[in-house]
Amino acid sequence: MTVQVFGHKSPDTDSTGSPIIWAWYLSEIKGIPATPALLGEPNTEAAFMLQRWELEKPAIIDDVADGTPVVIVDTNNPAELPANINGADIQGIIDHHKLVGGLETKGPIDITIRPVACTATIMHDLIGDDMSRMPNRIKCAMLTCILSDTLEFRSPTTTDHDRAVAEKLAGQLGISIPDYAAEMFAAKSDVSAFSDAELLRMDSKEYEVEGTRFRVSVLETTAPATVLARTDSLIETMQTVAAEDGVDQVLLFVVDILNEEATLLVPNDLVKSLAASSFGASATSDTVVLPGVVSRKKQIIPNLKL
Amino acid sequence: MTVQVFGHKSPDTDSTGSPIIWAWYLSEIKGIPATPALLGEPNTEAAFMLQRWELEKPAIIDDVADGTPVVIVDTNNPAELPANINGADIQGIIDHHKLVGGLETKGPIDITIRPVACTATIMHDLIGDDMSRMPNRIKCAMLTCILSDTLEFRSPTTTDHDRAVAEKLAGQLGISIPDYAAEMFAAKSDVSAFSDAELLRMDSKEYEVEGTRFRVSVLETTAPATVLARTDSLIETMQTVAAEDGVDQVLLFVVDILNEEATLLVPNDLVKSLAASSFGASATSDTVVLPGVVSRKKQIIPNLKL
Repeated sequence: MTVQVFGHKSPDTDSTGSPIIWAWYLSEIKGIPATPALLGEPNTEAAFMLQRWELEKPAIIDDVADGTPVVIVDTNNPAELPANINGADIQGIIDHHKLVGGLETKGPIDITIRPVACTATIMHDLIGDDMSRMPNRIKCAMLTCILSDTLEFRSPTTTDHDRAVAEKLAGQLGISIPDYAAEMFAAKSDVSAFSDAELLRMDSKEYEVEGTRFRVSVLETTAPATVLARTDSLIETMQTVAAEDGVDQVLLFVVDILNEEATLLVPNDLVKSLAASSFGASATSDTVVLPGVVSRKKQIIPNLKL
Repeated sequence: MTVQVFGHKSPDTDSTGSPIIWAWYLSEIKGIPATPALLGEPNTEAAFMLQRWELEKPAIIDDVADGTPVVIVDTNNPAELPANINGADIQGIIDHHKLVGGLETKGPIDITIRPVACTATIMHDLIGDDMSRMPNRIKCAMLTCILSDTLEFRSPTTTDHDRAVAEKLAGQLGISIPDYAAEMFAAKSDVSAFSDAELLRMDSKEYEVEGTRFRVSVLETTAPATVLARTDSLIETMQTVAAEDGVDQVLLFVVDILNEEATLLVPNDLVKSLAASSFGASATSDTVVLPGVVSRKKQIIPNLKL
């Protein structure tokens, strides 16, 4: 039976590229039939990566049947995975997030979690000497994942090792990292095709603070003004999205990649108070700038307080 | 703060030796102050290993204080760990058991789980080239762990890789595996100093089958007759142990390492029926022999039915 390799719902670049990398490794190097899959539409940067390197877009799947062999990448959180994930035959997990619990396996399996910025960095190490057999277009996917997750090494999640792997790949591929990252971020920043609700859900994780449930959404962009021009309608849509998704409040952080700051939308007193408690930021309008904040994992989630 | 490295409660050889190996690696190679610890008295084979290779017996700890940096080895099951484990600062997990869920970490950490027979085998790979700097007495601990968990390669959990690592170590150390394993198993088989209750708890995991809670205990020995001579009093003690430990029934499998079979004690109709459903074994007395059964993980737990 073919192994399905997938990341989390709302696929970003790492959750789109890493399944492609690992399915290649399993099928071409290990001789285990494997195919990448997506749990939703890839975001614009991930779609750019697929098109730019002529990678076939993986099939989008809704759920997994009982006993399907799967490898999970870029998450270990059942809430971000198909409903029947614990009914699947989980054969491996490769991830760089904190262990949240909730996944169970039927026997001992291969699990590799490392505190680096990107799943693709871990895969580079696991593949080891067989990296020499990787086709360039898969290497390009690997490089794209690392530049995406590290925001071209700007994110505080970046480790020396992420950077070293990306620089080695770029050297082998003859790619200029600054030029290519600018292309990637421009693709990510073109959000004109998306509705407000789609923007609020595009890169979003649920998180609870003192009993209040938040959808913590991030939009990484080189053109924050384009998004912030839509502040009024985004704020209006937050209520609908929160109600539909069963959370109390949507938080939207518009991350300015180049200037390394985030703008938090402030729809009400709850978020105003949260901005003050969490970031010491005093909001006087419907947005507030948080200097230096670019990482949900390292800078937003750990600081959230009411 | 010194990192505490420990395995599971009721320390066997792997849960005693692997903390020693990893604490050496962290402190001597990575420059991170670390110390091995035990969550209970080591079993006779583990005690033999410590004495044979002049390894200092790690301190026995009851619980961990909030924020203590820890590395967990040879388990990922909170039930087998200190009560406050999720209050500790878990920095790493190295294990070869199925993922059971329940552990949570504050951030992304190093987690390596592999489907091999022994934690020490995984450590060998993680240590990599630095194996050349490992003192012989630590290498001896590593070899002992692998020979213990694989029952000298007899257990069906044994992988080619466990065997290759053990044979490489034995070659470097000038140790004859058959001779040394015989010494180890003789040490493990000397259970004269233990009470019946101690024997029933020595190598034991809790497991639930259709709502009935079992303590699934295994005694690996080269001298099964010595243990089976105590069948009557062991059966009598099962009730007390079950009541004290809050389970419905204790199961004791006396594993004959050399003849590769287990003898299950049959105290009542529940266990008689379980022997039939699980192993197709028809018990006509207070013991029943299960040919070929040596591994709790691969052959006992997956087959348990009522």
